[in-house]
Amino acid sequence: MEQRGIAITRCPFVLYTGPLRIDLNADVGEAFGAYANGPWSPAGTGGPGSPGGNDASLLKSVTSANVAAGFHAGDPSVLRDTIRTAKSHGVAVGAHPGFPDLVGFGRREMNVTAKEAEDFVLYQIAAVAGVAAAEGVRLQHVKPHGALFNMAARDAGLATAIATATAAFGPSLILFGLPDSEILKAGRAAGLRVAAEAFADRAYEADGSLVSRKKPGAVIHDASIVVSRAIRMATEKVVTAIDGTIVKLDVDTICVHGDTPGAADLAARLRAGLEAAGITVRAIGAV
Amino acid sequence: MEQRGIAITRCPFVLYTGPLRIDLNADVGEAFGAYANGPWSPAGTGGPGSPGGNDASLLKSVTSANVAAGFHAGDPSVLRDTIRTAKSHGVAVGAHPGFPDLVGFGRREMNVTAKEAEDFVLYQIAAVAGVAAAEGVRLQHVKPHGALFNMAARDAGLATAIATATAAFGPSLILFGLPDSEILKAGRAAGLRVAAEAFADRAYEADGSLVSRKKPGAVIHDASIVVSRAIRMATEKVVTAIDGTIVKLDVDTICVHGDTPGAADLAARLRAGLEAAGITVRAIGAV
Amino acid sequence: MEQRGIAITRCPFVLYTGPLRIDLNADVGEAFGAYANGPWSPAGTGGPGSPGGNDASLLKSVTSANVAAGFHAGDPSVLRDTIRTAKSHGVAVGAHPGFPDLVGFGRREMNVTAKEAEDFVLYQIAAVAGVAAAEGVRLQHVKPHGALFNMAARDAGLATAIATATAAFGPSLILFGLPDSEILKAGRAAGLRVAAEAFADRAYEADGSLVSRKKPGAVIHDASIVVSRAIRMATEKVVTAIDGTIVKLDVDTICVHGDTPGAADLAARLRAGLEAAGITVRAIGAV
Amino acid sequence: MEQRGIAITRCPFVLYTGPLRIDLNADVGEAFGAYANGPWSPAGTGGPGSPGGNDASLLKSVTSANVAAGFHAGDPSVLRDTIRTAKSHGVAVGAHPGFPDLVGFGRREMNVTAKEAEDFVLYQIAAVAGVAAAEGVRLQHVKPHGALFNMAARDAGLATAIATATAAFGPSLILFGLPDSEILKAGRAAGLRVAAEAFADRAYEADGSLVSRKKPGAVIHDASIVVSRAIRMATEKVVTAIDGTIVKLDVDTICVHGDTPGAADLAARLRAGLEAAGITVRAIGAV
Repeated sequence: MEQRGIAITRCPFVLYTGPLRIDLNADVGEAFGAYANGPWSPAGTGGPGSPGGNDASLLKSVTSANVAAGFHAGDPSVLRDTIRTAKSHGVAVGAHPGFPDLVGFGRREMNVTAKEAEDFVLYQIAAVAGVAAAEGVRLQHVKPHGALFNMAARDAGLATAIATATAAFGPSLILFGLPDSEILKAGRAAGLRVAAEAFADRAYEADGSLVSRKKPGAVIHDASIVVSRAIRMATEKVVTAIDGTIVKLDVDTICVHGDTPGAADLAARLRAGLEAAGITVRAIGAV
Repeated sequence: MEQRGIAITRCPFVLYTGPLRIDLNADVGEAFGAYANGPWSPAGTGGPGSPGGNDASLLKSVTSANVAAGFHAGDPSVLRDTIRTAKSHGVAVGAHPGFPDLVGFGRREMNVTAKEAEDFVLYQIAAVAGVAAAEGVRLQHVKPHGALFNMAARDAGLATAIATATAAFGPSLILFGLPDSEILKAGRAAGLRVAAEAFADRAYEADGSLVSRKKPGAVIHDASIVVSRAIRMATEKVVTAIDGTIVKLDVDTICVHGDTPGAADLAARLRAGLEAAGITVRAIGAV
Repeated sequence: MEQRGIAITRCPFVLYTGPLRIDLNADVGEAFGAYANGPWSPAGTGGPGSPGGNDASLLKSVTSANVAAGFHAGDPSVLRDTIRTAKSHGVAVGAHPGFPDLVGFGRREMNVTAKEAEDFVLYQIAAVAGVAAAEGVRLQHVKPHGALFNMAARDAGLATAIATATAAFGPSLILFGLPDSEILKAGRAAGLRVAAEAFADRAYEADGSLVSRKKPGAVIHDASIVVSRAIRMATEKVVTAIDGTIVKLDVDTICVHGDTPGAADLAARLRAGLEAAGITVRAIGAV
Repeated sequence: MEQRGIAITRCPFVLYTGPLRIDLNADVGEAFGAYANGPWSPAGTGGPGSPGGNDASLLKSVTSANVAAGFHAGDPSVLRDTIRTAKSHGVAVGAHPGFPDLVGFGRREMNVTAKEAEDFVLYQIAAVAGVAAAEGVRLQHVKPHGALFNMAARDAGLATAIATATAAFGPSLILFGLPDSEILKAGRAAGLRVAAEAFADRAYEADGSLVSRKKPGAVIHDASIVVSRAIRMATEKVVTAIDGTIVKLDVDTICVHGDTPGAADLAARLRAGLEAAGITVRAIGAV
C-alpha cells in the first residue's frame, strides 16, 4: 500500500501498523423548530444559513453522527428525524450533549457544578439513546458539544462528571475528545473506550493543540489541503503544525464541521479522498 | 372480609373476584431549579409552597411515581434525584410527559400535530427511562400530564400519537388514563397493557366523568371520605356520583394529588386505610 | 390620476377619495441565537433558510417592521440589531408579540387565560418599545403573531386582552389586524387607532376571509399578479376573490411575508409597483 | 440624636453629616408560573419554599424592589403583579436583570460577550420599565442579579456593558452595586447616579469584601445583631469585620434577602429598628 510506505519514509512517529481505518464524524440534528429546515421537514432539506441546514448532505459522507439533544440545539422532532436519516445512510449515532443554553448555541462557558453536569449529560444521553432505540438504533458514542467540549478537555472535574454519566448509562459507549485531553483520561478511568478526535480543517500548534480561531490561518479553507491533511492524519497519525513542525497526533475520528458553507461538499471530498488513499472509512464502533 | 361482603350486597357491578389489589400513583419530580427544593437538595425536602415540595413524603406512601421530564416541570437533577428517592422507597417509576410549556406547567391546551406529540412524548419517555436505567430502575409506565392527559382522553388522534410513542419505546410499558378514554383505547390498539385511573378526592358525574373543578364540590377535602371512597373503588369498582348514583368505575390505580396542602398526609392515610381494609397496595406492574 | 379613474369605473365600493397611500409591513427580527444569522451578525445577513434570513433586504422595501420579542422568535441582540437596521432605513417599528412557544414559532394555538395573554403581550410590547427607545425610535404599532393573530381575529376575549395591554402601554399605538376582526373591534373599543391588514400574495374567499393554506391556490406565487392585486387593494380597496367575486376590503397596510424564498425580491417589486402606480408608500403612523 | 452622637464617639470614619437616611431593598418577583404562588395568585401569597414566596410580606418593609424580568426568574404575570403590589405599598421599582439561565436561577457564571450582556440587560430593563409604566410607576433603579452581580463587581468590561445599557435606557436610573466595585465605577463613568449596597446579614472581611458563603459565619442569623449592624451601617457607615476590625463601608442601600426562612420577619425588624434609631427609611430615588 503506497500510502503507508510514504508515511514510513516521511515520519518517524508511525505506530499504527494494522489495516488503515478512520471514522468521520459530524455534528447534526442542530435545527430547531422553524429554524433551518422549516417546521420538521425531512432533516437537512433547508438552506445552509443556520445550524442543521447541511445535515442531509453530511450524512451521506460521514460514518458517525453526533446528534444534539435539545439543550443547545435540536428538538424532539429534529432529533428523531435526524436519527432516521442517519440510520437510512448507515451512519452510527452518538449523543452530543451541550450546556443548557439554546440562545448561545452551547458555545458559552457556564460555571456548573459537577453534579449538574453529570445529571444534564446523563439526561441528554438518555434522550438520544432512547429515541434511537425506538428507531432500532443502538447508541455508539458520546461527544460533548461546544463550550462543554472545550472545558472538559482541560477541567478534570467536569471531565469526570461527563465520563461518569456516560459510564452510568452504558459501559459500551465510546467517549470522543481531543487527544491527551482530560475527558479522554476520565473516560479511560471510568472504564470506557475512548476515541481521539482531530480536525482536518483546523491548524494545529506545535504542542498539538488547535490554533485559536482568533488567529489568522486557524481554519483551512482549501479543500485539497484539508483532504491531504486528513489522509496523513489517518495514515501517519501526524499533522503539520502551523510552524511547520510535524506533530504526532492520536486520531481515531476526524470531525467535519457542518456549519460552514460548503461543509457537505468538503465532507464528500474527504470521504472520497480517504477511500482513494486506501483507507477504510468506517464508524468507530463498527466491527 | 367484611368490606367485600358489603360490596357484594350493595352493588350489582362487582366483577372482580381475585385478590383485592390496587396501585397508588402520584405526580412527582415537579420541582425546577431553585424552585420548591432549593438548588437540587434531596428531592422534596422543601416546603409545600410549590410543585415538588411534597415528593419525599408522598414517595413513602404511593407505589407508582409519575416523574416529570423537564418539559412542563422538572429538570435533569430533580429527575435523577426523584428516581433515586423512588427507588429507595421501592416505588415503581413511570414517565409523566407533558406539553412543552414550563411557565404554564403543562396545564394549557396546545394545538400540536400528531407528529409533534408523538416525538415529544417519545423524547420524554426516553429521558426518564434512560436516567432510571442508569439508576438500575426499569420504567414501568407512562402517564400523560395535565392538558395532554385531558386532551388525550377525548382526542383519538392525540391518544394514538401518545400510544404509538409509548409502544415504540417499549411494548411492555403500561399506559395510564381515564377509564373508557381514547388514550386507553389507543393503548390497547397499540398492543400495550393499560391501567384505568381514578381520583379518590374528586367528585364524579353520573356518567363516570369527573365533576369540573369549576363546580362546587368537585374536590373532596374530608380525608375519611376520600379513604372510604378509595376503598370502595378498589373493592367494588364503583363510586358514588355527585347526584347519589352508584357508578361502575374501572379502577387499576388511584391518583393522589401532590400539589395540595396536606397531600402527603392524605397519601399516608389512603395507604393505611386501604391496607386496613385488606387491600394489597402494590405497583401496577409488580408481579 | 388614471389609476383612481379605473377604480371608480370598475368598482362600486370606492370610498376612499384622499391621496392614495399605503403602508407595507413585514415580520422581522425572527432570527434566534446562531439561527439564520450566525451569532448576532448584522441582522439579516444570513441565508434564506430560516426565519430572519431576509430581514436586511426586506427592510429596504417595507415601511413598517413587526419586530419579534423573544417569545416565539428573536432574542435581545437580534431585537436590538433589527431595530437599528429598521431605523437606518427609516422603517417604523412595531411590536410583534406571540405565544411563549419558541419551538413552535408561535404558530400553535394555546389555551391561555385573558390575564396571561394581557400580561405577556404587555411584556413583549414593553421589551420592544424600550429597546427601540434606547435607539431613539418611538414604537408605532402592535401586530400579534401567528396563532395569536389568528385567534385574536375571532376570539373577542383574547382580542380585548391584547387591546387592553396595548392601550395600557400607550394610547397612541396603532393595532394591526384583519379587517372586521375582533381584534380591530377591541382596539377601537379601547380607544386605539387600528389598521386593517391585507395580504397581496394570499387568495381571498368571497366573504373576505383568507383562503386556507391547505387549499390549492391559497398562496399566489406570480409576482406580477401579487403587485397588481396590491395596487388594486391600495387604490380601489377591493380584491378579486378565488371565485371571481370582487370583494370590498378595508386595507391600511399590506403584509409582505418574509419567510418564503424570494420574499425580499417580492417586497422590492411591490414597493416599486405601488409607487409606479402613483401610490405613496409610507408608514401607517407617519404624518 | 443620640444614635449619631454614639457614632461620632465610636468611629473616626464618620463623613456623613446630613439627615440620617437609608434605603432597604429586596429581590422580588422571582416566582415562576406554578412555582411558589400557584398560577398567578396575588404576588407572594404562596409558602416560603421557593423564590418569590415571601414577596407580599417583604414589600411591606422594604423601600426599593428589585424585580426579576423572566430570564433567571419571574414571568410576565408575576412581574406585573409584583409591580402592582410594590406600588400599593409605595415601594420604588427597579429592574433586576440576570443571566438567561432559568434552571440555574441566574447563579451560574456565564461567559457572555459584552454585546450580549449589554443587549440582554437592556431588554430586561425595558421589560420591567415598560410594565411598570403601564401601571403608572417610573423605574427607579437597576440592580444586576446573582452571578451577573458578582461578575460585574470585578469585571470592568461586563460592568461597562451593564452601565451602558442602563444609561442607554434612561440616564436618570440609579445603578446598584457593591461599594468600590467595577459596576459602580462604570456607572459613574456612564454619567449615572450609583448606590452602594451593603448586606446586614452577611459577614465582611477586613478589606470590605463579603465573607464567602462557604466559610463558617458568613451569614448572620441573629436578627438583633443584623438590626444593630444595619443601624451602624446607616449611621456610621462602618461594619465590624469578621476579625473585629472596624471597616468603613459606603452604604446607600441595605439588601434584605428574601429567599431565606424568616426573611419577611427580618425585614420588618430591620425597618422598625432603623426607624426606632431615628433613621429615615426611604427609597433611594425619593426626594
